[in-house]
Amino acid sequence: MKKYLLLLLGCGFVPAANAQHNEDSITIRKMANEILSNGNAYEDLRILTKTIGGRLAGSPQMVKAEHWGFKTLENAGADTVYYQECMVPHWVRGEKEVVKIVGAKSLNLNAIALGKSVATPAKGITAQVIEVKDFDDLEAKKDQLKGKIVFYNYHFNPTFVKTFYSYGDAVRYRGQGPSKAAQYGALAVIIRSMSHATDNQPHTGSTNYDSKYPKIAAVAVGLEDADLLSKQIAANPGTKVFIKTNCQTLPDTIGHNVIGELRGSVYPDEYITVGGHLDSWDVAEGAHDDGTGCVQSIEILRTYKKLGIQPKRTLRVVLFANEENGARGAEKYAEVAKEKNEKHVFALESDAGGFTPRGFTLSMSTAQRNKIKSWSSLLMPYGAYDFDEEGGGVDVGFIHRALGVPMGELSPDSQRYFDIHHAPSDVFENVNKRELNLGTITMGALLYLIDKYGL
Amino acid sequence: MKKYLLLLLGCGFVPAANAQHNEDSITIRKMANEILSNGNAYEDLRILTKTIGGRLAGSPQMVKAEHWGFKTLENAGADTVYYQECMVPHWVRGEKEVVKIVGAKSLNLNAIALGKSVATPAKGITAQVIEVKDFDDLEAKKDQLKGKIVFYNYHFNPTFVKTFYSYGDAVRYRGQGPSKAAQYGALAVIIRSMSHATDNQPHTGSTNYDSKYPKIAAVAVGLEDADLLSKQIAANPGTKVFIKTNCQTLPDTIGHNVIGELRGSVYPDEYITVGGHLDSWDVAEGAHDDGTGCVQSIEILRTYKKLGIQPKRTLRVVLFANEENGARGAEKYAEVAKEKNEKHVFALESDAGGFTPRGFTLSMSTAQRNKIKSWSSLLMPYGAYDFDEEGGGVDVGFIHRALGVPMGELSPDSQRYFDIHHAPSDVFENVNKRELNLGTITMGALLYLIDKYGL
Repeated sequence: MKKYLLLLLGCGFVPAANAQHNEDSITIRKMANEILSNGNAYEDLRILTKTIGGRLAGSPQMVKAEHWGFKTLENAGADTVYYQECMVPHWVRGEKEVVKIVGAKSLNLNAIALGKSVATPAKGITAQVIEVKDFDDLEAKKDQLKGKIVFYNYHFNPTFVKTFYSYGDAVRYRGQGPSKAAQYGALAVIIRSMSHATDNQPHTGSTNYDSKYPKIAAVAVGLEDADLLSKQIAANPGTKVFIKTNCQTLPDTIGHNVIGELRGSVYPDEYITVGGHLDSWDVAEGAHDDGTGCVQSIEILRTYKKLGIQPKRTLRVVLFANEENGARGAEKYAEVAKEKNEKHVFALESDAGGFTPRGFTLSMSTAQRNKIKSWSSLLMPYGAYDFDEEGGGVDVGFIHRALGVPMGELSPDSQRYFDIHHAPSDVFENVNKRELNLGTITMGALLYLIDKYGL
Repeated sequence: MKKYLLLLLGCGFVPAANAQHNEDSITIRKMANEILSNGNAYEDLRILTKTIGGRLAGSPQMVKAEHWGFKTLENAGADTVYYQECMVPHWVRGEKEVVKIVGAKSLNLNAIALGKSVATPAKGITAQVIEVKDFDDLEAKKDQLKGKIVFYNYHFNPTFVKTFYSYGDAVRYRGQGPSKAAQYGALAVIIRSMSHATDNQPHTGSTNYDSKYPKIAAVAVGLEDADLLSKQIAANPGTKVFIKTNCQTLPDTIGHNVIGELRGSVYPDEYITVGGHLDSWDVAEGAHDDGTGCVQSIEILRTYKKLGIQPKRTLRVVLFANEENGARGAEKYAEVAKEKNEKHVFALESDAGGFTPRGFTLSMSTAQRNKIKSWSSLLMPYGAYDFDEEGGGVDVGFIHRALGVPMGELSPDSQRYFDIHHAPSDVFENVNKRELNLGTITMGALLYLIDKYGL
């Protein structure tokens, strides 16, 4: 930007900054009109979610999704499309889990095994449940846990306006809860789902075992059933629960990042990455997580091509192979970029849902952030005004750390995300076409400006 | 504000503006925490929509909704609750309308009679359909319309980011379309629904007959069926449609604005109004239109009361009797305020849906708008940043015009509104609890600041 201003000032042409602003505004408006009038992203998402569905790494659906991504990038007009091979974890849920309160009247709970969790013994586990409200409570009750099932009933904090803070606060119970309970001899763990939904859907997501302790089975229950279980325990402290899960971790298998490029006209060896992850949890259609990020990224390439917007740098759309239970795709992408000594200008991700945009989280220098903020009047008409938050997606985080690439993530309105995140309700019907398209527009506009002016 | 600053400067206490900002920020945070943690609005809305449902003026449900409003305002802690009587129109749909393409294979269209429209003759109307894309096209085809059905297939313009502009652009076909067609001898009118939804729901809403021309029956069809009909006509220009509607306009009847007040501690005779409309179209639950506006307004009063926030001016929550097909409640409210020579400081409405907030439309002096903009850092954390647009709701518009009261309307994100507006899909399940609550927070915060500092 600075270089550009000096150049203009050198010509003695002062109001040009405005003319430039107008030109950019017009180009962005054209992109917006194309996306809002003729956009393909919503239909692409329908095909991904409704004809392939849940697509966990290692599953047959993963392979289908890779083929879908390849073909969709070709149809969008990419100059090149290729697969980047990587090893991915291969965890399978097996038969549907059963969790029920045992007693005179047995009550089934709406439950789901946590990703990466181990199975219970074949005959299941029946044991008394000890409810803890947090880790402090766990410590206080540590002498009572041997041979029991621990129920982490930690609530999503409703007072955070940005719900990712509620998630960040609560998710440690899903991540560390099982091993912390195993440490004191617990046999299994039930967690309250990471959500503030008004329904009873159970929400999965990865747990992470600490190798120092036995690996124990872990499930999440829907919020209504978490409340029910809590009341049951209050009424009868001896309440027992039966848990049967059937998960297995198989040997790693082969997956692929799917990559499509529009060759840069001036600096073809400089890259701007935009992407989402192709995998999703098995139980959902993976619509918002992260089908939307994939179709938005492809749609940007399609729009550039359709409108004849020729990027100066190479625009690289990456559909990352495996975010949910390994991030192996992103790891490979960063590794290859480093090996090849690639020059990356910026990496953008959309993995916070296809909701109406509010801005971007960014991890970069203050000068770079300020440069992006100087474009805010160009982005504001499409809903993006918030550029202050530190952040970036899990996938672009790898290249950010490996090569120091400035990164960002679309920051959509977060109110509805944790209603459906990692739950069977993350389906196509819960994506709004116009919200999805507005997210794409703000992403496309930001990339257009970064490509044009650098960072 | 100015008075307050002078006072502080007079005390020689310069950094107080910041201290004041902090105090306001803390109070607003307390309101937000209360609403997000213990809010009643969502449950209030569930009761209104699920136990009463559609509540058009004159219907038995209207009476039930008035009682609900009275009781809910009492429970929220209002100092006084009262009814303000007004005459309301009494239009009834009668038996469900039938619209079908006639021919070898008869095809039912998903259709709905427009509000205030007349019925077809008892045996229905069967006639050839002439499709027009807009009023210019109507003029061009005026000689072909006698004895025919006119089909206005005017599309919602998808390129407006704020969807109320698309509505403003298209709604003239619903309002004026029937009389303009009747002028050239048409027997009935079909309009494409005022929507950009991805489903086939038909959207009703008022039409307005021009007394110079015969009143003819008018229906809206869902978007998929509008496309189907258009294709059918293209394939066979002689395509005929059968329409049978059963609407009636009965004599006006009695309805009520339901009003609850929190008495002002310093200026009890100065009023700040906040409200929504209690009526809704008959075919929907009237969740977003405008159950959410009602429950948000009540929730503000409840929150003030619960937290011991004592307004200086009298806060008046008004559930307006009849917006959809008459605005008679608002007319009465303004009339009474004028008769009594009441002093009104500000009037706020929420009637654009219970979606995540973006800001407020405002109709007031530039100085007043700038005063509100000076508080933006207090409102931004809850999602409200847009204060530039001119506007205000239909209901507060009456008192604005009658008494010159500055007015505003909550401006929520508008992407999903016209998916469900006036359609059977405007149901409780399409309201998100947290989005609803955030809207309330921004409204409550704005009113708190206006009450404290004046306008």
